[in-house]
Amino acid sequence: MEAVIGIDIGGTFTKIGVVDREGNLFYENSIKTDKYDDPLSFVSALHEVIQSFLADTGKSLDIRGIGFGAPNGNYYSGTIEHAPNLAWKGIVPFADIVKSRFQLPVVLTNDANAAAIGEMVFGSAKDMKNFLMITLGTGLGSGLVVNGGLVYGHDGFAGELGHICVVEKGRQCGCGMQGCLETYVSATGIKRTVFDLLATETSPSIFRKISFSELDSRQIFLAANNGDPIAVKAFEITGEILGKSLAATVAHISPEAIFLFGGLALAGDWIFNPTKKAMEEYLLPVYRNKVKLLPSGLLHKNIAVLGAAALVWKELDD
Amino acid sequence: MEAVIGIDIGGTFTKIGVVDREGNLFYENSIKTDKYDDPLSFVSALHEVIQSFLADTGKSLDIRGIGFGAPNGNYYSGTIEHAPNLAWKGIVPFADIVKSRFQLPVVLTNDANAAAIGEMVFGSAKDMKNFLMITLGTGLGSGLVVNGGLVYGHDGFAGELGHICVVEKGRQCGCGMQGCLETYVSATGIKRTVFDLLATETSPSIFRKISFSELDSRQIFLAANNGDPIAVKAFEITGEILGKSLAATVAHISPEAIFLFGGLALAGDWIFNPTKKAMEEYLLPVYRNKVKLLPSGLLHKNIAVLGAAALVWKELDD
Repeated sequence: MEAVIGIDIGGTFTKIGVVDREGNLFYENSIKTDKYDDPLSFVSALHEVIQSFLADTGKSLDIRGIGFGAPNGNYYSGTIEHAPNLAWKGIVPFADIVKSRFQLPVVLTNDANAAAIGEMVFGSAKDMKNFLMITLGTGLGSGLVVNGGLVYGHDGFAGELGHICVVEKGRQCGCGMQGCLETYVSATGIKRTVFDLLATETSPSIFRKISFSELDSRQIFLAANNGDPIAVKAFEITGEILGKSLAATVAHISPEAIFLFGGLALAGDWIFNPTKKAMEEYLLPVYRNKVKLLPSGLLHKNIAVLGAAALVWKELDD
Repeated sequence: MEAVIGIDIGGTFTKIGVVDREGNLFYENSIKTDKYDDPLSFVSALHEVIQSFLADTGKSLDIRGIGFGAPNGNYYSGTIEHAPNLAWKGIVPFADIVKSRFQLPVVLTNDANAAAIGEMVFGSAKDMKNFLMITLGTGLGSGLVVNGGLVYGHDGFAGELGHICVVEKGRQCGCGMQGCLETYVSATGIKRTVFDLLATETSPSIFRKISFSELDSRQIFLAANNGDPIAVKAFEITGEILGKSLAATVAHISPEAIFLFGGLALAGDWIFNPTKKAMEEYLLPVYRNKVKLLPSGLLHKNIAVLGAAALVWKELDD
């Protein structure tokens, strides 16, 4: 049977999956990314894990290629460039290293782009030619699909909506700028909003007893369900900022749908309702009540690994 | 010789051109748009003008098709939908009407999209696969090119950057919203900025003696050249707002270049310098010093007619 390998490189863990054409994940494993100081030893470790699987359970598989979702992964050059949360500095010719080790076709892009391809190949965007994927994790990632293809841009780095300035002289961002979308709309962003509200409002809240380091976005969701006024308002503010920003994206690419993925997307109506409301308010009339705002069809799956695998299937088909 | 007809439908005038593959415009004419209450009589008038040319000077031409740039023109359906500055209301099946009258292939899109195609086929974007065209006239139009193709979006109406909200509860826009980019960045926008500055600042200015209705953007350019402080500052503000907005567009599509066309673009450094400065300031480091900000290669030509013609050539080639 034909299969591909999908690999999601994160700062701490790298997740590996073997995936068939239908998106069935029939092998999963992971290695510690930060255990390897250089990409060569990292790729060797990946090779060992995968060879061991292929020599054993995966014996009958015809592996067609390997796809990677990696921070600052460049689709055109196959390089990983100045990834802030990886130990490998500078521009790493990652795809070339993998190719010479595995003797297989290799495709690489960033994790949010891989998620968009995953949605297109295995998720809810199967028949869509124009859509947007927003991944809400520690930061905000995005992948744009236009005319049936991913938007990589001139340099391979298109689709960084997390770093659009949404508040003039706003919150400090890890990128060095201020007021970036992801400092408001992400797991970290909503947490910062909770702490802003604890400072500016007097409402009681369970969060008055929790430190910044202890708080995570799932607690904010649970607190909103319990009527905690700070949690409820934090979701409203987060959705408002996201919705307004999505309206600007619609003015660019007029997508059929916008998918949300990640911890915040699991909060359901708490995030979808204020986002939808604000988006519609800021849309030019011609776009109103047309754009579907949907949870990812892979919301409860490993979209990063599936996306990396989908990248290979799409490449083989194109 | 092979040629195509390019037609730019404006609220007052409709301009007609016959254009060869190299972008040579060897026939030009125009009719009054607002003289025709319905699209049928308008198309008949076009037919008459063009037939008269073809029966005479254009006898030897092999006309391959007709392209239209029209307000709210929809590429997919060939319709003109609810165009605010045309007398024809509702959804007009314009391409169908033209086809049945001319018996030629017909392509239609909005004027800014046509300008983008014009830049790609005849202008400075000949070898570019990813770029942005901004047309600065009474309003701000935009055409996005990604992976070598125009971005029409799911509904055919993508690329309305003029209606992105850039100032919360800002200036009233003709579209019904507030704070839209084009209320600040366009010939009308800079004029409004001049009047805002006349109100908020005390600097002397030749504009203190001119009424709102009398002022046009060319006078602001001339005044800036003469050191008029209000004019100079108006360009700075206009460029800052445009540059910041362009940074957000770069985060979407990471284009190779951004072209400016129209009256404001003719102001040269007055508009390019502050725009470039603000754009770079708001760009994620990965995009900095990469994106070319350029005047359109067709700045002194009729980009709307050439673009409409280019639309046909591109369609025939694709």
